[in-house]
Amino acid sequence: MKITRLATTAPDFDARLQQLLHWSEDTDAGIEQAVAGILAEVRMQGDAAVLARTAQFDGVQAASVAELEISAAELKAAFDGLPTAQRQALQTAAERVRRYHQAQAQACCQGFEFTDDEGNRLGQQVTPLDRVGIYVPGGKAAYPSSVLMNAIPAQVAGVGEIIMVVPTPRGERNALVLAAAHLAGVHRVFTIGGAQAVGALAYGTATVPRVDKITGPGNAYVAAAKRRVFGQVGIDMIAGPSEILVLADGTVNPDWVAMDLFSQAEHDELAQSVLLCPDAAYIDAVAAAMERLLPEMPRAAVIRASLEGRGGLIHTRSMAEACAISNRIAPEHLEVSADQPRQWLPHLKHAGAIFLGAFASESLGDYCAGPNHVLPTSGTARFSSPLGVYDFVKRSSLIDISEQGAQVLGPVADTLAQGEGLQAHARSATLRLTM
Amino acid sequence: MKITRLATTAPDFDARLQQLLHWSEDTDAGIEQAVAGILAEVRMQGDAAVLARTAQFDGVQAASVAELEISAAELKAAFDGLPTAQRQALQTAAERVRRYHQAQAQACCQGFEFTDDEGNRLGQQVTPLDRVGIYVPGGKAAYPSSVLMNAIPAQVAGVGEIIMVVPTPRGERNALVLAAAHLAGVHRVFTIGGAQAVGALAYGTATVPRVDKITGPGNAYVAAAKRRVFGQVGIDMIAGPSEILVLADGTVNPDWVAMDLFSQAEHDELAQSVLLCPDAAYIDAVAAAMERLLPEMPRAAVIRASLEGRGGLIHTRSMAEACAISNRIAPEHLEVSADQPRQWLPHLKHAGAIFLGAFASESLGDYCAGPNHVLPTSGTARFSSPLGVYDFVKRSSLIDISEQGAQVLGPVADTLAQGEGLQAHARSATLRLTM
Repeated sequence: MKITRLATTAPDFDARLQQLLHWSEDTDAGIEQAVAGILAEVRMQGDAAVLARTAQFDGVQAASVAELEISAAELKAAFDGLPTAQRQALQTAAERVRRYHQAQAQACCQGFEFTDDEGNRLGQQVTPLDRVGIYVPGGKAAYPSSVLMNAIPAQVAGVGEIIMVVPTPRGERNALVLAAAHLAGVHRVFTIGGAQAVGALAYGTATVPRVDKITGPGNAYVAAAKRRVFGQVGIDMIAGPSEILVLADGTVNPDWVAMDLFSQAEHDELAQSVLLCPDAAYIDAVAAAMERLLPEMPRAAVIRASLEGRGGLIHTRSMAEACAISNRIAPEHLEVSADQPRQWLPHLKHAGAIFLGAFASESLGDYCAGPNHVLPTSGTARFSSPLGVYDFVKRSSLIDISEQGAQVLGPVADTLAQGEGLQAHARSATLRLTM
Repeated sequence: MKITRLATTAPDFDARLQQLLHWSEDTDAGIEQAVAGILAEVRMQGDAAVLARTAQFDGVQAASVAELEISAAELKAAFDGLPTAQRQALQTAAERVRRYHQAQAQACCQGFEFTDDEGNRLGQQVTPLDRVGIYVPGGKAAYPSSVLMNAIPAQVAGVGEIIMVVPTPRGERNALVLAAAHLAGVHRVFTIGGAQAVGALAYGTATVPRVDKITGPGNAYVAAAKRRVFGQVGIDMIAGPSEILVLADGTVNPDWVAMDLFSQAEHDELAQSVLLCPDAAYIDAVAAAMERLLPEMPRAAVIRASLEGRGGLIHTRSMAEACAISNRIAPEHLEVSADQPRQWLPHLKHAGAIFLGAFASESLGDYCAGPNHVLPTSGTARFSSPLGVYDFVKRSSLIDISEQGAQVLGPVADTLAQGEGLQAHARSATLRLTM
């Protein structure tokens, strides 16, 4: 396997690193135009457009959008019908994800109020969104874990109604996906997808209710549609290819690290797996483990294409330098495969999720550790966060002014409003000067 | 003045309300194309493109972008040179805004960590953004209060570097805006604007450093540019016209309410002022107050155009019904002009800021009460929040798995990964089964 090897001591390291990381989400004019057309159609024609596009793209014929809804009883039947091991694994995962997000809600989604010296009460109230839409991809990349990771934070937030859409190309339904919807408290499921599903959720149709926010991953059409309806509804991030960065000090079993790099690479050919390590011999050991383990992997072809196309083994001067490079990359998943992983934590500023220690494999986080697996990709961890309960609530400021407060604040507002040439603002403040 | 009057008892009320609220942020193809061109130019040519466009659009000639930077000494001089009343008003406002956002940071921007039964430690760490860009409009709508409201939350969050851009058409600099930048802890100021400034912040040039997020209001070109660079950098919301909704029970001086409706209407002709009240006589009293007060207002022409074009006086059956309609509108500013305003709070779900009681005029909130005046418009309070400290931090999940934890979680991840056809994920978990 020919994986790019870099050393930070090389004079052209910066340029080569930049080249390795380069990924551009080029907007495709054809996709943009198609999506604009589909959205306009759904906005004008509602259900009829949804039906026509579902027939065209998914090969699913239905007389009405109501026929495309999956009942709660069918979701429960899918759950009940799972093999015991799958049912129990899904339940354990859901419980752990729920518990984590409950702790998150406690830490970050509380309102506040304080009273100042003038008796004004100032603060914020936090309320859940009324209704959200969750997009779940269908076909070959149908992930029940994504259903849990999107729906449970919404449920913990107290969202009134969770509407899931999932395309079923040629009518194929994924029992695990439906079972996960049952378990995660999804209220309604429609078997629609693509830009037409995003449009139906954003604008509402006679059958599909309009939502306040749409989350969940999708293909280029779904991403383009989400970007277009942003403002009309809220959206979560636009996801790029998945990435892992392993920061290794050389103390963790090389087979484990090799398999973790594979686990990212097996997603698709654009996925990126990078190892940063100050120990050249250890990098060789991981490379050897990869060569040895690759033939055993059912998805070896995808893994090889991903690693040869976008993977990297980077020899650094030190762990501290590796941390600095990690901050530049701002990876989606960051494994600190080190003996004392917490010593590096204060140096790590930007990452979607930080996995600490030999036993923290990314795959545990993907499925069942508890934290969300919807994470910022392509360096966007510089400014964005994992999907969380905070994405399903919003805040309203509370401004409760006392009579005394109005006397103190009025002249200040008057002066500043006059400075901005807004005299009605000034007058509104001075009318309340009663004392 | 001919302001639309509606009554909830009318059979066509729903349709007429919808008509009154209608506002569509139609994307203008000409603007879109111009902005795409400018952004591409800035990306490719950097400073040269910024200089050319600044000369073209602002009439400002400079030999280098460095010449367009305003030094810290100049900002301080602007502050020192203000009349005492303005300087003190700005200081009081800044202190109050800072104190409020410090309380907000305590309530919503803390990390957390807990240990589960298997000894796994799970949580999140919260870190500030490295560098943000603040867009401040220039020319006639140059608002120093916006500088405080954007920069102070960033400063409280601990953002490393705050870069402000503000266009200076024909070289006109606004001393209050520069003074506010000095006071609010802005690190660098460039006198550039439009799509070229957004591009410079998003991509970086030789002179303007690349930022991680861009906040602040702007015209249609700025909004289109922000929408386009979203993903490359974070952005705040795209603001529509400003709105106020007053929920009145008839107990507050009608002159005060009339002036509050004016204060919104004076912004521009698209601004929207709406009164909801169950007391018909009180609505008449407010209307009469508006007729009487209008001639005194310097911006009477804008106020009249706004109120006649988009204003509304709505007679409701009850305060409870008024609350329900308010939730449908999800206003940016909501004044509860009532005797016991807190009794209505549990009924109010969607609003950017809620002003409670007779003395809480919107203008106090706009300038100096403390809460942020950057608020979700056009019904987006259904899913978004005031600008806050939370917009200038991001979270990284922490996943610290114990050896025992890996034994418990491994089989769960194995089962679910197999169910999704991701065997390297499964193997990554099972390799850690050591006991």
